[in-house]
Amino acid sequence: MLTIVVDAMGGDHAPACVIEGTVQALQESGNRFKIVLIGQSDKVEPLLAAHDISTLNLTFLHAPEVVTMDDIPAIAVKTKQESSLVNGLQLCKAKQADAFVSAGNTGAQMAASLFVLGRIPGVLRPTIYAYFPRLEEGLTNIVDVGANVDCKPEHLVQFAEMLTIYQRYGAGIEQPLTGLLNIGEEEGKGSEMLKQAYRLLKEADQAGKITFLGNIEGHDILKGKASIVVCDGLVGNTILKFGESIPEFLGTLFKRSLDTLVTSGKMDKETATLTTGLFRGMFEPFDVEKFGGVPFLGVDGISIVGHGRSSSRAIKNMIYMAEHMIEKRVNEHIAEVLFEK
Amino acid sequence: MLTIVVDAMGGDHAPACVIEGTVQALQESGNRFKIVLIGQSDKVEPLLAAHDISTLNLTFLHAPEVVTMDDIPAIAVKTKQESSLVNGLQLCKAKQADAFVSAGNTGAQMAASLFVLGRIPGVLRPTIYAYFPRLEEGLTNIVDVGANVDCKPEHLVQFAEMLTIYQRYGAGIEQPLTGLLNIGEEEGKGSEMLKQAYRLLKEADQAGKITFLGNIEGHDILKGKASIVVCDGLVGNTILKFGESIPEFLGTLFKRSLDTLVTSGKMDKETATLTTGLFRGMFEPFDVEKFGGVPFLGVDGISIVGHGRSSSRAIKNMIYMAEHMIEKRVNEHIAEVLFEK
Repeated sequence: MLTIVVDAMGGDHAPACVIEGTVQALQESGNRFKIVLIGQSDKVEPLLAAHDISTLNLTFLHAPEVVTMDDIPAIAVKTKQESSLVNGLQLCKAKQADAFVSAGNTGAQMAASLFVLGRIPGVLRPTIYAYFPRLEEGLTNIVDVGANVDCKPEHLVQFAEMLTIYQRYGAGIEQPLTGLLNIGEEEGKGSEMLKQAYRLLKEADQAGKITFLGNIEGHDILKGKASIVVCDGLVGNTILKFGESIPEFLGTLFKRSLDTLVTSGKMDKETATLTTGLFRGMFEPFDVEKFGGVPFLGVDGISIVGHGRSSSRAIKNMIYMAEHMIEKRVNEHIAEVLFEK
Repeated sequence: MLTIVVDAMGGDHAPACVIEGTVQALQESGNRFKIVLIGQSDKVEPLLAAHDISTLNLTFLHAPEVVTMDDIPAIAVKTKQESSLVNGLQLCKAKQADAFVSAGNTGAQMAASLFVLGRIPGVLRPTIYAYFPRLEEGLTNIVDVGANVDCKPEHLVQFAEMLTIYQRYGAGIEQPLTGLLNIGEEEGKGSEMLKQAYRLLKEADQAGKITFLGNIEGHDILKGKASIVVCDGLVGNTILKFGESIPEFLGTLFKRSLDTLVTSGKMDKETATLTTGLFRGMFEPFDVEKFGGVPFLGVDGISIVGHGRSSSRAIKNMIYMAEHMIEKRVNEHIAEVLFEK
């Protein structure tokens, strides 16, 4: 049976939300895996006591220190060796667990994952991707979204290769399509780095490692033209955070217009409720909590990172994502493909 | 009286839309300026004949060649010397006109503007910015949005300085606030280029050239935290095109949900019409046609560029923007401030 370590201290709503999500995952899955919840006992145990966990595959492990959202990643990893983050990952390294899950400080989790678990042989730089909404079936992932700000062309190529493997084996997409995010579609557009990345991506396509569509532009992302959108971490991070701000922005504009209609008597309350439901439904494709979180690709082990804002549902889905990564042997496939080179 | 040259051949709906926008601008403004419409006579004159232009300050000038959307900028400028684009800008250079307006090939207009008009002394690289929606009063401009993909720190600083002048003198914002688009708020975040840009922007602030807020992130753009968001052309272009694709994306999602409600009888047609109006209203802040277009900042003359999709209303507003740039003496102010250095 698989063992998944869950960081009870990670996330804006930790530990309460993390405990709830963990209990939900075990209940919903019928104890399909074991969970080790790790964190400060004085914070976690009182909350855990409120749940009936006697029938669940759940154990609690005390870790005296906590890495906070404000901690500087490289420093936190060195100075907080007894944190739930570092101790949790060490359980994976020691093969006492198969995966680690946290919604805490992303930078610190990246640093700790690299430090404790290391890289899959052949990986230049581990990376982190994000899910984007799209109109049609399927999914769109953007890579990198902030782990690597100064990318070289060969890094972008490896991101595409790793995500192709993830989508093929982990998401069941037979032929993932890669697009290089650029200022125009034509070959020869963009900076020297992008021109070089274009050439290398074409070579990777010819070698059968990826399927390369060529350059794509900002307006192609939501259209779902590519299932893998490759860019450096600055571009990806900006697009990700910009995209995340859209539902709230439009929600405010929507509420203003709705209030005006209701106040002026042009719309009755019943219709307003119906319309609000319609508005909410419109943002269903923006619901990335259904994926919960994402793995650090390229790390020699499974470390799933979630949004700081994660709800219990997101935590639950992160646990499923961890299970999925193990079962689909994504890391083994990455090692095989990169070793071929 | 000011003279504005309008490129009749520029834009997806040219020349019809351009002619309509030009006529509207003259009618609405009461012939406040002179317009020289430039383009291929066999395309323009038949359409012009449909309008009563006898009372308008409008003259037509034939230019035998056309720069198309597919033309490669640097080549088009050299090989199509008798195009409406090149000839129109030459009228400005020869002081026979005060400004040039086009909704054609942006890259070619940039190249031609630089080639024919040159740079304002002291300007390292002319730039192009875009308008972004925001919740509160005021405006948000992002710079650069594609004219400069490989930026050095000193370029970003000049973009901020030029846009500060534009917003102060051209848009009446007393103290424009500049933010550096980055992956995190803290000083020291991002690539070497961004770290260096941060230091130089701070110096420009201390020298009183700009007001620098520090780093901002993707989710701060729509919040309107800064009125000037500085980034390199790849990031800006991607965010711009991504942003432009949102109304259509959400419109499709909205229509799907609405159709389901109407078909299932949960919403009557009258309410559906009301709700559709509400949805459209929500996107009012995304209407950038009210600005029509933007000037190339740093070019020694006034060259206003519009979106290829420009409607007649956008063309009209681009003409007003040209008038505004002349009257507010934005270029003179840029020359003064950059010369001080």
